[in-house]
This record gives sequence, structure tokens and C-alpha cells, in this order.
Amino acid sequence: MPKDMAQTPTIFERRESAARSYCRSFTATFTEARGSELFTADGTRYIDFLAGCSSLNYGHNDPDMKAALIEHIAGDGIAHGLDLHTDAKAAFLNALSRHILTPRGMDHRVMFTGPTGANAVEAALKIARKVTGRTNVIAFTNGFHGVTMGALAATGNGYHRGGAGMDKSGVTRLPFAGYADGVDSAALLDQMLSDPSGGIDAPAAILFETVQGEGGLNAASAEWVRKMQKIAHKHGALLIIDDIQAGCGRTGSFFSFDEMDVQPDIVTMAKSLSGFGLPMACLLVRPKHDIFGPAEHNGTFRGNTHAFVTARVATEKFWADDAFQKELAAKSVMLTSALKEVADLVPGATLKGRGLMQGVDVGSGDLAADICARAYELGLLIETSGPNDEVVKILAPLTTPNALFREGFDILLRATRETMSNLKLAAQ
Amino acid sequence: MPKDMAQTPTIFERRESAARSYCRSFTATFTEARGSELFTADGTRYIDFLAGCSSLNYGHNDPDMKAALIEHIAGDGIAHGLDLHTDAKAAFLNALSRHILTPRGMDHRVMFTGPTGANAVEAALKIARKVTGRTNVIAFTNGFHGVTMGALAATGNGYHRGGAGMDKSGVTRLPFAGYADGVDSAALLDQMLSDPSGGIDAPAAILFETVQGEGGLNAASAEWVRKMQKIAHKHGALLIIDDIQAGCGRTGSFFSFDEMDVQPDIVTMAKSLSGFGLPMACLLVRPKHDIFGPAEHNGTFRGNTHAFVTARVATEKFWADDAFQKELAAKSVMLTSALKEVADLVPGATLKGRGLMQGVDVGSGDLAADICARAYELGLLIETSGPNDEVVKILAPLTTPNALFREGFDILLRATRETMSNLKLAAQ
Amino acid sequence: MPKDMAQTPTIFERRESAARSYCRSFTATFTEARGSELFTADGTRYIDFLAGCSSLNYGHNDPDMKAALIEHIAGDGIAHGLDLHTDAKAAFLNALSRHILTPRGMDHRVMFTGPTGANAVEAALKIARKVTGRTNVIAFTNGFHGVTMGALAATGNGYHRGGAGMDKSGVTRLPFAGYADGVDSAALLDQMLSDPSGGIDAPAAILFETVQGEGGLNAASAEWVRKMQKIAHKHGALLIIDDIQAGCGRTGSFFSFDEMDVQPDIVTMAKSLSGFGLPMACLLVRPKHDIFGPAEHNGTFRGNTHAFVTARVATEKFWADDAFQKELAAKSVMLTSALKEVADLVPGATLKGRGLMQGVDVGSGDLAADICARAYELGLLIETSGPNDEVVKILAPLTTPNALFREGFDILLRATRETMSNLKLAAQ
Amino acid sequence: MPKDMAQTPTIFERRESAARSYCRSFTATFTEARGSELFTADGTRYIDFLAGCSSLNYGHNDPDMKAALIEHIAGDGIAHGLDLHTDAKAAFLNALSRHILTPRGMDHRVMFTGPTGANAVEAALKIARKVTGRTNVIAFTNGFHGVTMGALAATGNGYHRGGAGMDKSGVTRLPFAGYADGVDSAALLDQMLSDPSGGIDAPAAILFETVQGEGGLNAASAEWVRKMQKIAHKHGALLIIDDIQAGCGRTGSFFSFDEMDVQPDIVTMAKSLSGFGLPMACLLVRPKHDIFGPAEHNGTFRGNTHAFVTARVATEKFWADDAFQKELAAKSVMLTSALKEVADLVPGATLKGRGLMQGVDVGSGDLAADICARAYELGLLIETSGPNDEVVKILAPLTTPNALFREGFDILLRATRETMSNLKLAAQ
Repeated sequence: MPKDMAQTPTIFERRESAARSYCRSFTATFTEARGSELFTADGTRYIDFLAGCSSLNYGHNDPDMKAALIEHIAGDGIAHGLDLHTDAKAAFLNALSRHILTPRGMDHRVMFTGPTGANAVEAALKIARKVTGRTNVIAFTNGFHGVTMGALAATGNGYHRGGAGMDKSGVTRLPFAGYADGVDSAALLDQMLSDPSGGIDAPAAILFETVQGEGGLNAASAEWVRKMQKIAHKHGALLIIDDIQAGCGRTGSFFSFDEMDVQPDIVTMAKSLSGFGLPMACLLVRPKHDIFGPAEHNGTFRGNTHAFVTARVATEKFWADDAFQKELAAKSVMLTSALKEVADLVPGATLKGRGLMQGVDVGSGDLAADICARAYELGLLIETSGPNDEVVKILAPLTTPNALFREGFDILLRATRETMSNLKLAAQ
Repeated sequence: MPKDMAQTPTIFERRESAARSYCRSFTATFTEARGSELFTADGTRYIDFLAGCSSLNYGHNDPDMKAALIEHIAGDGIAHGLDLHTDAKAAFLNALSRHILTPRGMDHRVMFTGPTGANAVEAALKIARKVTGRTNVIAFTNGFHGVTMGALAATGNGYHRGGAGMDKSGVTRLPFAGYADGVDSAALLDQMLSDPSGGIDAPAAILFETVQGEGGLNAASAEWVRKMQKIAHKHGALLIIDDIQAGCGRTGSFFSFDEMDVQPDIVTMAKSLSGFGLPMACLLVRPKHDIFGPAEHNGTFRGNTHAFVTARVATEKFWADDAFQKELAAKSVMLTSALKEVADLVPGATLKGRGLMQGVDVGSGDLAADICARAYELGLLIETSGPNDEVVKILAPLTTPNALFREGFDILLRATRETMSNLKLAAQ
Repeated sequence: MPKDMAQTPTIFERRESAARSYCRSFTATFTEARGSELFTADGTRYIDFLAGCSSLNYGHNDPDMKAALIEHIAGDGIAHGLDLHTDAKAAFLNALSRHILTPRGMDHRVMFTGPTGANAVEAALKIARKVTGRTNVIAFTNGFHGVTMGALAATGNGYHRGGAGMDKSGVTRLPFAGYADGVDSAALLDQMLSDPSGGIDAPAAILFETVQGEGGLNAASAEWVRKMQKIAHKHGALLIIDDIQAGCGRTGSFFSFDEMDVQPDIVTMAKSLSGFGLPMACLLVRPKHDIFGPAEHNGTFRGNTHAFVTARVATEKFWADDAFQKELAAKSVMLTSALKEVADLVPGATLKGRGLMQGVDVGSGDLAADICARAYELGLLIETSGPNDEVVKILAPLTTPNALFREGFDILLRATRETMSNLKLAAQ
Repeated sequence: MPKDMAQTPTIFERRESAARSYCRSFTATFTEARGSELFTADGTRYIDFLAGCSSLNYGHNDPDMKAALIEHIAGDGIAHGLDLHTDAKAAFLNALSRHILTPRGMDHRVMFTGPTGANAVEAALKIARKVTGRTNVIAFTNGFHGVTMGALAATGNGYHRGGAGMDKSGVTRLPFAGYADGVDSAALLDQMLSDPSGGIDAPAAILFETVQGEGGLNAASAEWVRKMQKIAHKHGALLIIDDIQAGCGRTGSFFSFDEMDVQPDIVTMAKSLSGFGLPMACLLVRPKHDIFGPAEHNGTFRGNTHAFVTARVATEKFWADDAFQKELAAKSVMLTSALKEVADLVPGATLKGRGLMQGVDVGSGDLAADICARAYELGLLIETSGPNDEVVKILAPLTTPNALFREGFDILLRATRETMSNLKLAAQ
């Protein structure tokens, strides 16, 4: 069993804000990481099924990216480049264009924003509003898009919304795909927008994740996504897909909407975009909507050149052909199968999500928390999601070797089994 | 004379958003950088008086930070740590506490936000609003705090405000220190807040930069800052100093307000915080105001561990004793003296700013642009600021050797002289 | 056939704003009115099925109110009383208390607001927000609550919303009862409010009309209204029923919700409240929510004492016993029957509304306009409503004698018949 | 000494909202009123120096208006006319055009709004925003424009602002003329608007009262008003003068800005517009800005035809020639002189306002309240205004006979004298 450090790392308690969070559940102080494993100073190992909330889709310290990055730094390559031209940025753009955009017939331009997903969302909403001259954005129940004021308006989570300390405006919330029994939210949205007295102001954009990462791994069907694209264009709005958590291979293909026959007007990217966990965000925008003037949306760190280096490697290594995608398909099947084993242990539990972004809704946030806490004691980092944190969520690196994947699952199964036993004992 | 690459790097034109900006003036593609110098692939050298807009206060690729960073990466140190405890974060917090906070009697806690200055400002405003239960924030003419919706509301610049495509709320604008002849903006603010019908809602915070970086290097006096602190506390508001551009030594001391006998409730930090130009931002908040719940304000990249490594080195290397600060005092005098030479060439020109954050108001945006363009041709990167871009702004790395500083100034002098000559010729 | 005045009354064209509206369809200049009839200077008579949009439920110049008003004026009774105590106000309050509130077990207090329905709605929303400390108000598709900024935020009509020239905030729109096939909007609202990530901020109030007057005579069932009351209270919100158009007997009882077994926290009243068409508005508020300080919501004309005089007479004359209500029940049956005759002439037409607030949805705004225009030529004032103005709406004075009612209907039938014939001819 | 009724009129306490206000100071129940005198049932007389807050500029029950109104009602004239053409409306418009607008070269159109001043202000702001496509409105410290959400945003009073229970947006507040020592608010506004980083969004309108009625009788100079007109037009904004309280002769001429050589784009009117205290409001708008579509801003009671009748008489009786205006000039001198007598009794007291809208700033709200309370006991209705209610404000009917004026003043002098004596006694 892993052991935490004997003593509380008091510097965090003394000097770090109470807003710190994951470290409350995962109390160890981590020092090294390789692939899907994290280590503390004393060599204790943890299997990582959290992967920086899907920011480490290619695992920790991928050797190829690491080598390229060290070479770049050692050679005094640019670290901070504002939005100047650098060789590293050119190389990344070339790789993205060649391996990702061009093969998909996407003529989108890349706008590097401040290196946070929220910043990309803010920029996307600003563009949509500027392009259309409208304010209103349609967002959905359980959507999560960040916590800066513009993005937070579109985020459904009440805890985060409350953090603003003031009202947020400019967003209309509709039920997400499959949210409410019997409610076809696409039909409802279309009806309200078509009705001159429907009371929903003409929208600048429709914004959603195809799989809601923080919202509980709710996956929209391709049909629903296509309907939303159609409604957006019918009513003069842009379709924005937030692929920050679900993109970069997480659902089994580079974009989460690859198999859906849609062409979003804007796609927001961050998290695993740099490949190495380095801060990087961008949006992809159709040329006709690329209307910002120079620096109209700016940000000091939009040229994090280290991230361009690793992002280029990630793109070339994993997406130059379809080998990785095929691996993911196989892993996705394995994941579903493994999660069924977990779900079988919990009465009423259901599977959520798709691809490598799946989880088990165990019906209660307390139960999910207990399972994850026990898993941590047993050496596995795994988190919950969902409105009541009731979904045990697997966000393992996509590159996790099968044996390690299985090892992680065995821990999860044991943690679930023990937690359920304790529950039964407590109930008796 | 430096030469740009023979051919336009078309990948940028083809795939990068029209929002790109600096690369339009500084058209080269940069590949390496050391200290205060940038290089292109063919070895062309540029002296850097921009320093990533004050994000590279310690220059490019500082050898000590570089060594520590390579060692960290080579040893598979954590790259992306969410807000988990890491040894690198502990080391940075210890250094900050020991060398910066404790000596100043600051009991502030450090909240790592998404690694952009805007994100730190957003978090600061949210805290102030949550603490006070009020919405209104007092901000000032020519203040610049970022372009995400919450921060943008506090930003004065109309071009950036327009980028939002919608109204912004929650901020009341007052004239900055010295903005309007005969207007004591501190007295005016106090009068309006004290008047039950003054029409300014009770504020959550008063927010400003002590030296307005983008707004034209307007420097507030210590007296004005103290008055604002007094007014804030008299009316139940928090004092937030945005030290993103002016902090980390830029004005001659670590904080821009070090000599002012004030204790801000919140300080926002970013830009040069990591020391190496890596994305990193935080806010310092008095413990009594540190009221966010876990992850109430969150962000994927708030644990950019590479930045913690370099930030720790920067703190220890430059701020463990007063040697660096003394150097800065000397350089500041030199800078003023050099800028006077420049100003002498332009009728009516005035000096702006303080410390290593000074510039020359040449009275016209066109003139300032011409001077900077000519300087670039002569091998110097230098930018303008101010509402009409009329201030030629020096943001050289604080570590620039005196000889290089002088070399840069000689270019600036020559560029100014030549530009003025051309003007006179054109006028004849 | 009635004739308009030979010449255009050019003073209106020269000096009245283009915002004037009804006079564009009903071009005559009216000089006298009695009961359900309007007259022009040359004696041309019009039957009034519009009744000041339900502001003249007791007809024009009711002789008893008229006598009382003349007596009041002749005796130098107070005309304008601010919110001073007057004998006229006391008498009205006594009548309202005795005949309306006390018999229904309503302990509500009467707050006289500025004498417009919109003002009463504004006050109601302000109270709800102040009581709850929340901003968000739930309103519904096709709801109409006025066009001042606070009320307009709750109004669904896009044409009116657009008139604001700016965004409106603080309101979340849900589908009204029966709005969308298969959508139980009460269940949906409850689910979204109960979900911590549902994205609807905790509401201050749920606001609606039980029969949407401008929105197309959509009538909510008693069950839906009760569900909304339950949801409001479950989630800590106030239930506000806007009875401005549907109240004062319009649906067959004094309040539109009299038979629904609900007790709204706030009821807004205006239109027919004065009985005589004089400007008067108020809200009824439960004592525990009556938290405004003196004049916290004020208004110069909240003491329109002439209106108190006629309102007192109206209350005593029509609501002291159940005779009038019984009459209304009979008339309501007659109205339904007559409207069926109209509907039978138009393929696909359906009946809308209830009580004396019924109409025929003829499926097209153009058709409805043609029918009303022809009816006007034939001597009947009648208007449309609904999102596309597709509902021919009967808002005759409740006191219209049966013979006159029939006469009006015969005109409507003829107008419908002729319009349909013309349509068929045009189609051939 | 007047006596109140022996017993509290409990119906008000039982059934009227706690928001009632004036009746708390002036506790009598009033039954009759003539000219500048109010009477209770037992014949107790009060002199009225409040005049319905300037809604009864021509006194109570003016015999000519009264006769016309009774004749109108007796003849079954229209009471409620929506925005239909009526003979009464035509007659009023003709009178207004002939006696007021045409002689002043004003080509403005009249838009009848809901019959409250706030409604006229809401409509004015909506027009300005629609015309300009901008949101921001410049309003001023101590301005009062009503308490519905749109108007309230422009109102400075914090007590009323707090009643909204939510944030208000769309307004920027500047210091009013003479508000802050040494601050030229016109120059400041122009500077901030001219500065691209001034942080005040381009305004739709500049809105103010030339004499701030509720704000403490602060009178703007003609020069300041002209400057504001110039600034408005320079920056593409509309000039809106809110003449609701200061208009209709209150400052000595029909409009408060008559002698100022300005031509507002919009003027809001209400209060004394009907002449009789009946609810009526309108705005005057330049034809080029009269861009609302039919009913885009609507309101049930915008056709209060009784008010048109009396308003026509008022216009013809008082404004057909300059006799009345000359009377007002003389009265204004008398008023100043009388108020000096009052001011002389209170150390430090200063005179405020102009025309028949003057008062004495006695330096303390408590003192002003005590004086007014004592005056009431002595038979005079008089109120305070100002941010701290520190101004004893005279709003007597403009038609008050000189002898009655003097009688009222003698009461005020006695009340002031006695209050000051009590103060001195208490201090000893």
C-alpha cells in the first residue's frame, strides 16, 4: 500500500490558497512521472487514471516530446514568443495542417489564445458575438467551459457559477441531449427560436461539448449534433464545439466529432493539445469568421513556444497515420468491458461516455467518492464527475499499456468491491 | 542592417488567425534567444527592448533557470500537476515565502490560477465580489487587465472592449492618477462613494496598476495609491493591485508598490513570475479573503510545474538579497538619462513611467510607430503603448548588460533622429 | 357602413410619434363612448370588442362610476394624492378588502405603483429579488409583461424586446404550459432547478399569466399552475401571477386563478382595476414579502385618486355578490359557441383561451388581419394576438348586452366569410 | 393649529403596503383640495408647498380644467383611448404644437408613453439606444429618473437603487454640474470620451435634469447644458433632458431649458403635463429619432383621455401668451427673498435651485425633517430633498396667490425658528 509522506507538507497549508482541490484527495507530494505512472519522493507509485483531466492523453514525459523539448531548451530556442513568428510555431502549424486539418477538409485558421481552455472559450464567444452582432449564446445543462466570466456564463455548474459573486449574462440554457425524459431539446430549441415570441433572443452561437467531461460523461449522439449544426445555421448562429476535454483522441479520434459529419464554425482546443501537459490553447475558426483585428483578443502567453515544440511531436507521432486511432478503438472496447465489471458490483450502476472517456454512474456522489478514495489508498488516481459527482470517470492516458490498464482496473474493482462490502456492513 | 527571411513564412498567413499582431511589425521568424538578444535562423541578431511585454524580466534562457529546467525534465519531473502537491511547487512556495512575502510582512496566500494574467484578474474580481457580496469594481482610465469578459470589463481600451461584441458590466471607471487636469480622482471617488445619491454602487474592489503598462506608462504617486487604499477600506472594498506588468522588479523593486506603505488585499501576478517566460499566474490574497472553496475557481494548467521550477530559481537568484534591486536603481537612472536624449530630439516629447518601465511620449502614434519601425530595421525590438500608441516604451530585460543597453539606445536615438529628419523633409 | 372622417387628422401625422399603433388600423377619430359602443363626431358607431385591451371590462363610461366621478370632481375631491391618505383611497381599500380579498382568505397587502401594468410588474420583480436575494426570474414563451426594461426582460415578444436596443438580463425563459409537444415544462423546470449543474440560477420568482393575453390566449391548466406554485416554493422562489389582462373578471371570475387552489405570493393588477379605464395599477403582496421601505419603489401618480373613486364603485357594483360572475359564466358559453361558428369558416382554425378571453386561431397573421380589417369596415373593433398575430381575439366588455354581443359576432362572421371568399377567389 | 383625525385610518395599516411614504409624515386623510390648499374631512386646512412633487403646478382642481373635465365626462367623452385618435388628443396636440413647440422652433414629435415619468424615461433611453446602436448612457450624480429598471440604472439614489435587488447596467455616472470642487465634469466627460482608452463606451445619450428635483435642487448653468449638448453631438449621442419635475413652468418658463439656447433631441415630460395631476407622460423627440415602429414601445394607459382634456386647457390657459411667465418671474424673486429669511435662521444654510424650484440646504437631514414636521403641525405641507434630505424644498403651485405664499412662508419661518430654538435648548 502506498504511503504518503510522514509529515504534512505545511508550506501548502501555510501559503497555498484554500482553493486548492485535487491535493485534498490525493495528498501525496509527487516528484516524478512517466507514462501512466506517478511517483513520490520515496518511490511510491500511483497509476494515473486522471491524466491531468485529459491534459496528458499521451502520458507523462513522453520520451520523444521530452527529447525534443530538452533539445530546444538546450539550444536556447525561444521560450516565450508572444505572437511573433518562430520556427517552432511554424513547425507545429505545418504538422497540424498536414496531419489534422487538411485530411479532414478543414480550412480553419488557428488562433492561439491565452493558454487556458477558458481563454479559448472566451475568444470563441467573442468572435461569435462580433461576427453576428448578437449577444445570446445557447449552452446546455451540465456543460462546463471554464470559470472566467464569459466562459462561466456558459457553464452550468452552480458551485462554479456561485464563485463569480455576481450575475452572468448572455447565455440561454437548454437541456442537453438526452437530459430530460421525453424532451427533444433540438426540437424545443428550434421551436423557441422560430417563434417570434419564443423569448430566446437570436443567438450568436450554439456551444457544447459532444461528451460532457465535467458534467458526467453525457454523450450526445451524432444525430443530435447534426441537428444542432442545422439549427445554428438556420438561425444565423455559429456552431462552436468545445473539444477541450473530449478532443485530442480522447473519444477515439482526434476530434470528438470526427465521425459525425459536421463542420463546426469554431472548435476550442486546450488540455492535451501540447501533448506534454504544457499550457496551450487555441481555437480553430473558419476563415470567414476570422475577423478579429490584430491583438483584438490578445494574451501574453499565447506564444508558449515550448508547447509548440511538444505539440508538433505529438501531432506527428500519433496522428500521421491511423495506427493510433486503431489502438484507441481496441482500448475503448476493453474499457467498456472493464467498466461493466465495475458496474456489475453496484446495483443500478450504468455506463456513461464513449471512447476513452467512459465512466460508471454509481448513483451517489458519496459512494463514488468512497470508491475513489479507496482506489487512491490502493495506488490509483481516479476522479469523479457529474452534477452530483456520482460518476467514477476514467481519463487514463490513451497510451497506457494494456497490462497497466488492467492493473488499474483491478485496483478499481477491488476498491469498488471493498466499498460495497463496507456499505453492506454499515447497513446491517 | 538585419535582414528578414527572404520569403514570407506562408504557413502563418495560411493557417494563423488574423488576430496575430506583433509579427506584423517584427516580421522575422525567430529561432534562438539569449539574454537580451533574439536571433533568426540565419543568425541575424535583434536587441530586445520588448522582453515579452515584461514577461522576460530576467532575459531569455537565463542559464541557471535553463539548467534547472533541463534537469527537471530529464529526470521526468512532473510537467503538468493540476493542483496536486509537487516538490517543485513546494520549493517555489518556500522561496516566495522566504524571499518575498515574509520580509515584507505579507501574510498573503498564493492562489495559482489559470496561467494567464487575465485569469488572475478574473479570480481576484470574483474573490472581491464574493467576499463583499457586491458587484461593482472601481477601475481607471487607461487601465489594462486582460480581455476575458470579467477582466475586459475593467480594461479601458476601447479597441479591446469592442472585441467582446457585447456589453460588459460590473465596473465603474474613474480617472487615473493625474489623468485630468485639476481633477483629484481620489477625492472625487471618495465624494461619490460617500454620497448616498452619488450613483456609484458600493464597490467590491478598487483595482489598478501602479504604473499603467499598456495605458501609456502613467505612474501613480505613492500618495494616490495610499489614498485609494484608504478609500477602499473606508467603503468596505478590497484593494487589488494588478502587478502583472509592473511587478517582478520592473519598477525597480519586486512589487511596484514596495516603497508605498500599502498592503493590498489582493495582488495579481503573471508575466515575469516564472522568470523564464513560461505561462504562470497567481494572486496573493490576504488569508481573511481566501474564501474560495476547493476548485471554486479552477483551471487545468494552474499547476504548470516547469514554471514552478524556473520561478523558484528566479526568486532565489534575484531576490534573496538586495544586490539586484540596487542594480536596478542604477539602471533606472541610466534609462531616464538615455530617454532624455531621445526626448530631446522630439519637440514636446515627455518622459513617462518609472524604474525600468519608462518611455517617451512623442505626441503622436504615427511618429512613435515610425520610430519603432525604423528601430526594428536597425535591429532593435521596441514597442509603443498609450491610448494612441504615442509612447515609445522601453521594457528591456532587467538583466540587460549596460553595454547592450547602450547599444540599444544608440539604435533608438538613430531611429528617432532619422525619423525626425524624414518628417522635416516631408514637411518641406 | 361606418365612414371615417373625410380628411386625415393631420395633427397626428404631424405631431404624434410613429410609435402610435391602433389608430393605424382603426383610423377614425373617436369622440364618445358608452358601454360597448364607440362613436365618432359624425355619429358613426362602432361595436367595441377590444375594450381597451381588457381595460374596459365594465364598458365605457359606466353610469354609476361616471356619476361618482363627476360628484368627486365637482366637490373638489383630491385628484392627485401621491401616496397620502385620502378618503377615496380608504373607500377603495375597504371595498377591495371586503369584497375581493377577505372572502378569498387573501391576507395580501395592496401596493399602489405607478399606474401602468409594467410598473406593477417591475415592482413585483424587485420585491421578489429583494426578498430572496436572488436575481433570476423564470418567465415563459409568449409571456407579455410590459416594455420597461425590467418587465421587458420577462416579455417573450421579440419585436418588443428589440425595442430596448440593448440586452436584457435576469430572466430565464421556459416553455409555457402546452407550448411544445411532449414537453412537460413543469417537470423540465423542476429537473433543471434541482440539478446542481442544471445551469438555471436559483430563482427569485416564477412569473406568468394564467391566460397569455398578447401571446395568443394560451391558457394554462389549473394543474400546471399548481405545479408551478409547488416548484416555486420548493426552490425558495415567489409565485407571481400577472393578472393585468386576465384579471378583473376577464376569465369569468375576479382573479383568473380563482378556481385553481393556488395562493400567489404576488399578484399584479392594472388595466380594468379602476373600472373606468383610468390609469391605475397595484400589486397584491403577502405581508411577509411586503418588505419595501417607504418609497423604496415610488412613483408620482401612484395616488390617482379619480381611479380610486371609480375602482371602488366597480368593486362594489360587480363583485359584492356572485350575480355578475354567474352572468359571465353564461356569456362565456355563448362566446365559445359564437367563436365555433367563426372557426367553422376557416379550415384548421382552433379556439383559444377561456372565459371572456377567447379567440380563434385562424392559422395566419395575414388572414387574421384581413378579417379584423373587414370587421372594422363593418363597424366592429377587434384585434389579433399571438406570436404571429394569428389569433382573432375577443376582449369585449364583460357587460356587453347579449344582443350587442350577437350583433358584433354577426359582423365578425360576415367579415370572416367575406375574407375567406376573397381568398378563394384570389387563389383561383 | 390643524388637527389630524382622532383615530388612525387603520385600513391603510391593514391593507396598504409598507412602501407608502408621504402619509407617514403627513398623517391626515385628505378629502378636498382647491388651489394651493388641502382639506381633511373635518375642514382642517393645509397649505400645499409640495404640489404633488410638482405635479400640481397649476394647483388643485383648477376651475377651468375641472369644468372641461366634467363636461367631457358628462358627455360620455372617451376615458380610455389606447392610442386611438380622439378629439381630445387632437385638441391637446394642437394646443401643444401651437403654444409650446412651434413658437420655440421645435419640430419634435410627441410620443405618449405609459403615464408615468419613469415610463417616458424608459422610452427615451430605448430610442437613444436603438437610434445609435449603443448601450451606454451618461447620467449624473444625484440624478433621479424613476425606479423601473431602465430608469433606475440612470438614477443615482442608492436607496432606490438598492430596491432593485439586482445590478443595473448600461449607465455611466459622471459628476453633475458643480458637484465636485475643481472638477469640470463637462471637460472630464469630453476627455474620457475622446480618449480611446478612456474606458467609457461610446454613449447613446447624455441624460440629465437641468435642476435636480430629488437630488437637492442642484441647478446646472446654461453654459454647462450647452457644453453637454456639444459633447453629446460630438460623440454621436443624443441629448435627453428630463424635464419631468423641472418642466411645465416650474423654473419660470415652460421648459427648464428655454433660456439656454439648446435643442434637446429628446425631452421627457410628465408630472404637471396634464395640469390637473392626472397621470400623463410623453416624450418629445426630434423626427429623425422618431424611429420606433408601431407599438414597439406600448402601454395600455398611453391614451388617458381625461388627461388630454385638462392638459389642453392648461396649455391654452397658461401658455398662450407670456402673462403667466411674467408672473412666475416675479414670484421667483419673492421666493428667493423669502427663502433668504429662512436661511438666515440657520447658520451655514444656503439657497438652492432656481425659479419656483428653490429650497434651503440646512446642512442636515435631521434638521430639515424637524423643520418640515413642525411646519406640518402648523398647517403646511413641505418636503425635503437632496442626497441626505438636507434641503427644505419649496414646490408650491405656481398659481399660489401671493398672500397664501406669504402665509406659507410665515409658517415655514416659524417652524424653522422654533426648531432652531429647540436645538439650542437641547444643546445646552
